[in-house]
Amino acid sequence: VPRPEKLFLDDVTVGMVFRSSEYRLDADEIKEFAARYDPQPFHVDEDAAKETFFRGLAASGWHVAAITMRLLSESIPFTGGVIGASGEIVWPHPTRPGEILHVESSVLDVTPSRSKPDRGFVAAECRTLNQDGQPRQVLKAKLLVFRRTGGAREGA
Amino acid sequence: VPRPEKLFLDDVTVGMVFRSSEYRLDADEIKEFAARYDPQPFHVDEDAAKETFFRGLAASGWHVAAITMRLLSESIPFTGGVIGASGEIVWPHPTRPGEILHVESSVLDVTPSRSKPDRGFVAAECRTLNQDGQPRQVLKAKLLVFRRTGGAREGA
Repeated sequence: VPRPEKLFLDDVTVGMVFRSSEYRLDADEIKEFAARYDPQPFHVDEDAAKETFFRGLAASGWHVAAITMRLLSESIPFTGGVIGASGEIVWPHPTRPGEILHVESSVLDVTPSRSKPDRGFVAAECRTLNQDGQPRQVLKAKLLVFRRTGGAREGA
Repeated sequence: VPRPEKLFLDDVTVGMVFRSSEYRLDADEIKEFAARYDPQPFHVDEDAAKETFFRGLAASGWHVAAITMRLLSESIPFTGGVIGASGEIVWPHPTRPGEILHVESSVLDVTPSRSKPDRGFVAAECRTLNQDGQPRQVLKAKLLVFRRTGGAREGA
């Protein structure tokens, strides 16, 4: 189904699906992110990781979340950008070096704001999957989306 | 109250509080993180950001989450590390360049696993606050924690 280039809240319907491109995660990037933001042995050192709960190098869940955001920013075409208000996040299984991730986002709910006529909220389930379709993160996100009539600002 | 250097599930009690050190977030780091993981105008360019919903440069919420993880990894002394299973995350207000963040984590619940005697879960509310005590992120995290009798692995 062809879609307009940028969507307003008025264009979004329950069941709409957005599929992202792919992102290959290698060991160097796992260790680089973790050294800065999650410096625990199972995220920064292959050998030390073997002796931990993860039994080998695993990406920080917050790294998977950051990659997911990158993929969402390119795959969800909302006018004004992808603006998250809140979310529920689960990591059902660690993400390992060499996995190729993509995100499939399904619209669960569309709710105009009661107090602000220029906007509303979209609830979406964003599933981050590896190359075998195995889930690595499931995010239920509440996104702020502008309405066509509301005078959304440019710039995103 | 003095605490043992590393805590097992058996040592964790409801109401226990952990306070992190401080982390100063500047514009360069906001733009560097966003260029890689959330390349939207309000996160990567001061001038473009003025014309958006945020009306100025704001950190990606996932950047605030990553910084929060850094502060948690240093402030929550669980044996085996800080291992998140899931979380609920809210960003009540954007984080701006120059803000100085810290995290205050309160234990809400402690639950031994029914099926695995070596571990359990701690529910914690982790509030990321700026230098004026204003909340920038609230994370309710479910953390996997090992029991003293369970043979937790070394390495973290």
